[in-house]
Amino acid sequence: MLFSLGSGKANMDPALINFKVLYVLTQLCGLTMIVLVATWIGQHFGGLAGTSNPGVEFNWHPLFMTIGFIYLYGNSILIYRGFRTTRKKTLKLTHAGIHMGAFILTVIALKTVFDSHNLANPPIPNMYSLHSWLGLSAVIIFSLQYVAGFVAFLAPGLRENYRIAMMPLHIYFGLFGFVLAIASALMGITEKAIFAIKTPAYSTLPPAGVLANVIGVLYVVFGALVVYLATEPSYKRKPIPEDTALLNSSSANE
Amino acid sequence: MLFSLGSGKANMDPALINFKVLYVLTQLCGLTMIVLVATWIGQHFGGLAGTSNPGVEFNWHPLFMTIGFIYLYGNSILIYRGFRTTRKKTLKLTHAGIHMGAFILTVIALKTVFDSHNLANPPIPNMYSLHSWLGLSAVIIFSLQYVAGFVAFLAPGLRENYRIAMMPLHIYFGLFGFVLAIASALMGITEKAIFAIKTPAYSTLPPAGVLANVIGVLYVVFGALVVYLATEPSYKRKPIPEDTALLNSSSANE
Repeated sequence: MLFSLGSGKANMDPALINFKVLYVLTQLCGLTMIVLVATWIGQHFGGLAGTSNPGVEFNWHPLFMTIGFIYLYGNSILIYRGFRTTRKKTLKLTHAGIHMGAFILTVIALKTVFDSHNLANPPIPNMYSLHSWLGLSAVIIFSLQYVAGFVAFLAPGLRENYRIAMMPLHIYFGLFGFVLAIASALMGITEKAIFAIKTPAYSTLPPAGVLANVIGVLYVVFGALVVYLATEPSYKRKPIPEDTALLNSSSANE
Repeated sequence: MLFSLGSGKANMDPALINFKVLYVLTQLCGLTMIVLVATWIGQHFGGLAGTSNPGVEFNWHPLFMTIGFIYLYGNSILIYRGFRTTRKKTLKLTHAGIHMGAFILTVIALKTVFDSHNLANPPIPNMYSLHSWLGLSAVIIFSLQYVAGFVAFLAPGLRENYRIAMMPLHIYFGLFGFVLAIASALMGITEKAIFAIKTPAYSTLPPAGVLANVIGVLYVVFGALVVYLATEPSYKRKPIPEDTALLNSSSANE
């Protein structure tokens, strides 16, 4: 994964040394976050289950949201700067592909939380919490972004000046959806900790509570790193010769 | 407040028309947010009280955090772009002044929540929730930023190249602290809604629950607008003649 970071002329730019260090840190932070969520649900809430055990089926929700809607979403944003020596067209397809993976995991994560409410006895109401309102908003923003991004930057036909005009909005709403996903995850962790850490109570900070808070802190650090790496001007990917060659030879397919 | 927005040559730039519309929208959103928090605590949680009634004293916490740590913090960030025809020195002092106001309200908001825990019978533990960890982190980041910003940009003596090097970090951590404050507020609203909206329960979305969620949505919209207005390059304040005049005539005090 990191191997493309070290190749080519990129090595010469001192800003890219910082980028690489922070990029590795981002990956470590993201992977730790996933391992800790898996540990949290595994050690304290019964692991994973199907529809026959809705209370435990719920656990797919934080796990797949963390992998899909936070880790993959963040990494898909960073793909252009992380793999700067890869040609643009490949990066665009990878960006769309990782986002599709993120979307599929997110949809499964949504299905499992609705199951865990609807199949409970008695059923738990859906969509009442601020977490659900903002989380679903983040998913909708993500989905609209996907469609708009596909039409604007992957499908052929849109005029260049429209693409240029769309780009700042695509970047803004992409980062907005990502930050909103993280804020929603923080509310979700808060809800789960209050509802499910009972003996001993969350307020006494038992291991399950400490782990919940550490996961929340890692969400924030991961999010802060992704946004920084994606917005710092000196880390911006510069066009490579292959980008132009591609543009000239296959502009009809762009 | 808006009157300085309409003055001077700024009118000619079409990007500034958009800025003005969104700036007014931001203020309306922020003021509505404050009115709704006041309504929420007034209608549903007993209004405001002193240390003799810790459960109600708590209500200062969401009110002053919303006014200080969200509304004033956001507006202080926007002061340079919102009042672009005012000279830089005045803007810097106003920025520091509004931030000081935000800090004072935040400290009172912290005192009241600790009171509401410590004076309760039995006392409620402090600093156990993710909300408290991230909220206090946001306050600490804000405070360190204040000191660093004061030393770098208001106090005399720091060399110009250090100031220039500090600016991107000041902007990044300023916005990071602001977004973290909003994320913390969303967790705070979630906690209060779960703990205090009992009959009927939050899960049945009674008026107090709907109001909680609407306040949360407004926090997000306000935050999204502030970050957009503060980062969109075409809205950036350009130096005015008075800035340079000041620099030449009083560089010893800069």
